[in-house]
Amino acid sequence: MKIDIIGKGNVGTHLATALKDAADVASVSSRTLEGLRKGSDIYLISVADDAIADVASQVATHIPSQAILAHTSGSTPLNAISGIHNLTGVFYPLQTFSKNVSLDYADIPFFIEGCDSHTHDILCEAARLVSPSVYSADSEKRRDLHVASVLSCNFVNHLWALASGYLSEKDLPFDALKPLIRETTRKIQTASPLDVQTGPAARHDLKTIEAHMERLNGKQELKEIYRLLTLSIIRTDDNRHNRNKI
Amino acid sequence: MKIDIIGKGNVGTHLATALKDAADVASVSSRTLEGLRKGSDIYLISVADDAIADVASQVATHIPSQAILAHTSGSTPLNAISGIHNLTGVFYPLQTFSKNVSLDYADIPFFIEGCDSHTHDILCEAARLVSPSVYSADSEKRRDLHVASVLSCNFVNHLWALASGYLSEKDLPFDALKPLIRETTRKIQTASPLDVQTGPAARHDLKTIEAHMERLNGKQELKEIYRLLTLSIIRTDDNRHNRNKI
Repeated sequence: MKIDIIGKGNVGTHLATALKDAADVASVSSRTLEGLRKGSDIYLISVADDAIADVASQVATHIPSQAILAHTSGSTPLNAISGIHNLTGVFYPLQTFSKNVSLDYADIPFFIEGCDSHTHDILCEAARLVSPSVYSADSEKRRDLHVASVLSCNFVNHLWALASGYLSEKDLPFDALKPLIRETTRKIQTASPLDVQTGPAARHDLKTIEAHMERLNGKQELKEIYRLLTLSIIRTDDNRHNRNKI
Repeated sequence: MKIDIIGKGNVGTHLATALKDAADVASVSSRTLEGLRKGSDIYLISVADDAIADVASQVATHIPSQAILAHTSGSTPLNAISGIHNLTGVFYPLQTFSKNVSLDYADIPFFIEGCDSHTHDILCEAARLVSPSVYSADSEKRRDLHVASVLSCNFVNHLWALASGYLSEKDLPFDALKPLIRETTRKIQTASPLDVQTGPAARHDLKTIEAHMERLNGKQELKEIYRLLTLSIIRTDDNRHNRNKI
């Protein structure tokens, strides 16, 4: 399979690496289209969401009509590019990619959408070159997965960044939290996060919560995050207990 | 070493399991004190924070003066019990414990405080029966570690609970997020979370952020959490760039 990947950001770079052993891959600059080949099977657009339509339009003028043009965005619908070329789709890898951080590509779930079943099937075939976890998802489902990903990955990482910054100011090592973080992740591989919630909020330990809030005086944003998530845990817990009583 | 652990909640149960192969351990009911022995070396109080002083007071009437009385709370100061017995301390395991979830105890960092160096040393010795990661921390440092733990563990798990609930309503599997979650955790074992932040907020992708916020219409609390954490990521990113420019 000949696959051109347009875009050399985090996603494009990693997809190229993931596919290069199993397919004939070209990495193409999204600015200049340098490296774009004429007769490839699939053209993957891996650029910022608001650049997808533009870059796709430019690429479409160079490619054969039977080639597939797909983007890799979780939150952009198929219809952003479906008017640009006759065979379009979405090839969405549900993973967090950072430059210079290698990872196990075979572990990545791919969510595929195609303008028709032929396109869908070809994109699934390409995804299966990387990973056995290949699913279908339309734009709506993909948007929902992307929202959940922002919660589960981006916001989670940010909480660790906040913790790291907080400890750094107190001359305490963030390293001390790593076993805790690993265990927090490990638990939910097999248990529902709802069943393994721990901490002062889950215990309705108002005394500790107040003491923490006081410690955060002067750190308005962090205090507000603490307050909001604490309330959310308490409400989630209350809702579960009320449901169990019914 | 003879160690009595008073309290059969998450922490008490796990500490008993962690210590039982290397010490002579008794698990004691915090309500009735059934099982409490007279001549132990260390008495660990593992109960809810607001019960520590009461339970410690009751235990203290039964134990020899040379025994050590310690609690295991991250957010309760030593002085909650230091007036109750002559040798007191804190034996704080920085980990998340859930019933019926086994874990690698040797990976747990312990933070020790003692009313004097003898007490401190004995408690360190007990901790080293479980794990090589044994540190000293006074009440203030421990409070800060506990705040950071709430951010890094409790709030993180809750974000996963929110994601799980959200996907469940949309008939999408939370399992699809697990590789992402594992990778999010794996990355920060070796990189700073500040350096591997990804997602729409980190990219200042306002179009995607707006689309997500719209998707969360009708889910007021979740929308507010999304908003607050998004702003926090954007501000953190801005602060870093401004620092780099100076």
